Amino acid sequence: MSEYFEFLKLPNTFNDRQMLDVNANFILGMLKKAGIQGRLMDDKNKKSVPAVYGEYIHSPQATTIIFYAHYDGQPVNPANWHQGLDPFKPQLVSDRLDRGGKFMAFPKKGEKFDPKWRIYGRASADDKAGVYSIIKAFQAIKDMGLKPNINIKFFFEGEEENGSVNLEDILEHNKEALKSDLWVICDGPMPATGQKQITYGVRGDVNMHLTVYGPKRPLHSGNYGNWAPNPAQKLIRLLSSMKDENGLVLIDGYYDDVIPLSAAEKKALSEIEDPAPVLKQELGFAEAEMLGVTFLESITSIPTLNINGISAANTGRLASNVIPTTASAALDLRLVKGNTVENQVKRVKDHIRKMGFYIVDKEPTDEERAKYKDIIFVTQGHGYPAQRTPIDHPLAMKVASAVQSSADKKIILMPSSGGSLPLYLFDKVTKTYPVTIPVVNYDNNQHAENENLELGRLKEGIKTIGAVMLGL
Amino acid sequence: MSEYFEFLKLPNTFNDRQMLDVNANFILGMLKKAGIQGRLMDDKNKKSVPAVYGEYIHSPQATTIIFYAHYDGQPVNPANWHQGLDPFKPQLVSDRLDRGGKFMAFPKKGEKFDPKWRIYGRASADDKAGVYSIIKAFQAIKDMGLKPNINIKFFFEGEEENGSVNLEDILEHNKEALKSDLWVICDGPMPATGQKQITYGVRGDVNMHLTVYGPKRPLHSGNYGNWAPNPAQKLIRLLSSMKDENGLVLIDGYYDDVIPLSAAEKKALSEIEDPAPVLKQELGFAEAEMLGVTFLESITSIPTLNINGISAANTGRLASNVIPTTASAALDLRLVKGNTVENQVKRVKDHIRKMGFYIVDKEPTDEERAKYKDIIFVTQGHGYPAQRTPIDHPLAMKVASAVQSSADKKIILMPSSGGSLPLYLFDKVTKTYPVTIPVVNYDNNQHAENENLELGRLKEGIKTIGAVMLGL
Repeated sequence: MSEYFEFLKLPNTFNDRQMLDVNANFILGMLKKAGIQGRLMDDKNKKSVPAVYGEYIHSPQATTIIFYAHYDGQPVNPANWHQGLDPFKPQLVSDRLDRGGKFMAFPKKGEKFDPKWRIYGRASADDKAGVYSIIKAFQAIKDMGLKPNINIKFFFEGEEENGSVNLEDILEHNKEALKSDLWVICDGPMPATGQKQITYGVRGDVNMHLTVYGPKRPLHSGNYGNWAPNPAQKLIRLLSSMKDENGLVLIDGYYDDVIPLSAAEKKALSEIEDPAPVLKQELGFAEAEMLGVTFLESITSIPTLNINGISAANTGRLASNVIPTTASAALDLRLVKGNTVENQVKRVKDHIRKMGFYIVDKEPTDEERAKYKDIIFVTQGHGYPAQRTPIDHPLAMKVASAVQSSADKKIILMPSSGGSLPLYLFDKVTKTYPVTIPVVNYDNNQHAENENLELGRLKEGIKTIGAVMLGL
Repeated sequence: MSEYFEFLKLPNTFNDRQMLDVNANFILGMLKKAGIQGRLMDDKNKKSVPAVYGEYIHSPQATTIIFYAHYDGQPVNPANWHQGLDPFKPQLVSDRLDRGGKFMAFPKKGEKFDPKWRIYGRASADDKAGVYSIIKAFQAIKDMGLKPNINIKFFFEGEEENGSVNLEDILEHNKEALKSDLWVICDGPMPATGQKQITYGVRGDVNMHLTVYGPKRPLHSGNYGNWAPNPAQKLIRLLSSMKDENGLVLIDGYYDDVIPLSAAEKKALSEIEDPAPVLKQELGFAEAEMLGVTFLESITSIPTLNINGISAANTGRLASNVIPTTASAALDLRLVKGNTVENQVKRVKDHIRKMGFYIVDKEPTDEERAKYKDIIFVTQGHGYPAQRTPIDHPLAMKVASAVQSSADKKIILMPSSGGSLPLYLFDKVTKTYPVTIPVVNYDNNQHAENENLELGRLKEGIKTIGAVMLGL
């Protein structure tokens, strides 16, 4: 565990190249301890944050499984974290902090860890837990003197939270080394029920960022109120035109390209206990969005348009009587099978124009300000489409059996997660399907403040991955 | 000027009692230099930040004018200020920073200040410039060996930006000392045209703060998107229901209590050049809100509902793929003659309920979360109504003549400012009308980041106040 704490102490915000290199070297060190001579893997033009690669070859004829996780993390805003927490100073806590968990000293050598304890820190769950589970599963097998009957490859990406902008080039440039029969992705949360799970797909994702312009200077809301245009007012008018009270997106054609779930996928979903009632109580709200489908259908088969954040001037203690100069919104568009990034972004932009806004791709000029009533600066992230592996793929079925052999309860076969990974690239470049095995607790706050990992999950995750390595 | 810089270096955020006391003592020191033995003035229960009081008595029979300004300021968010600026380290700048102004060294003794230079710093304009103009006008008269023919009283408040929560009690408790024939208030910006002005009233003001609740923990917008309710979505739906695209408030009865402008007030307004075309160009927007009236009518005779700020999770560089836990808005309600704080706040709350929200006055309990779909935490500030002095009040007309005598151009007689001060209390408690003489540049960014004062205005302001002290 002290080694995992050292790993979490390394800041890993995407784009922080210097620290990501330190992380990659740390992973090489862990691979080495497990008997694997790893190496860094670049794209052709060496633009990317390198991936970390390693391999164990049983025989050239054997089935090859390649394990994926990512070592970069989402940005942090330390001010939002619980008092006493620093995102990059991992801390042991006796329970979830919002359930009264107390900070714990790190146990002395030989003392036991309670599986209910949690580690709080950025990437404790997403996705250093994946990297760690894969390497430690292999090391445990080796330490027990056992040998897997398959070839095992390791691939740890360093740009996932940045939309995997160079993954395609890395895969393309290292096609030979990365040949396999199946990718096993170790990322994302387990279901709230605590059952083990294999996921056969992901939603796609693209972010958009909107900034609406008001007066060039912040204005006194008394001296100019009723006259100066308020960018926050314009932004909320625009945003509220995009979605109705039930959560239905009102943008023209937003649901047009969706390929519905197959019969096999629908059947698999119907066999999963609906986590919604437990989640609603746990998360403290009376009614979910009402798209007329189950929780699992809503997150697997329907594209989203979510407000990740809004801002204009200040609220709370820092609020003051001004008309703000700008108002911004960060949007998240999840894509399902059939959607393309281009189409969904275009639909949002068309809608913005239909609402009367003039779109700029940099700060508006004085001429633009004088000419257009409503001006908005729109940017978009990299983005990628959804991916789905057939739920009856033969090797994937063997992996499912191996995972089942490590589990007490019936495992879940999930056609798609709600979350996103650029798994479509594995299909597209390596012509090999991926499946995903999540290992972390559902309530891990990934991507947000107070990210945490329940220790028992990590131990169980190492067992699960070990079962796949040994069970084929 | 170095004394004014020392004054601005004293942080004066409302409610920062310790530093406000330091400011009050500094003002007593300035009064002393002007030959006035000042004192602090409390309310009966000594709850208030004290006001600073002083007096010059010419004769018991003489007309008495009491001059008011306030020495507290709005909160600051240093992160929003221009690079190199600290709100409480005033700096000389050669021009407005957004017009390419450069930081200037403080001139050596004997070197001249350019009247176009600006001082950047919190309260440089609002309202230490008022305090300073009043005291320095009196000191200048004294230094010239002249004696005003009126009694002059000085009253500097320390809680104005906090809604003057104890002003009524201070006035009540010191009624005898504060007797006068007219209050002259030195606060707020001069018109954009640069003309001198007397203002006969103010709008009232009350702030409201709204927080809408989502899931208890921040959620991954992929794993929960389309299902978990998004508080930002709920907030924008609510806010956008309050106001239409033209700036018209849609809340039932919001404009019902308004007492329209009198014929004399309308006439005075019609004699003022419309500042809107200059302002629009200067502020960089194509169209103002369209309430169907002029700029001056919109800010004098119509109540407002303005969004001062909105926030939910993060935008920009710190944005991440979450569903936020809360979304907040700071609202500013300006009141005109006829409005009451109680009625306007009640109308907003009634509207919130009509939109389906359940209002709480503290964090919602688990029971409330389980029971109500849309939960909102609503608070309101202290607030006060509008005030208007008759535009043909005899002593006020003499003050207007005195101001006109100090001006090159025709002065403006303004029935009401758009901004707010608790002037209704002077009517109510001291039974004496107030008029306001603004002395600072219109583009001073008061209440916001990069607050600044044009030096020439300060000099001219001292002249104006001096003319009133000598001209009656």
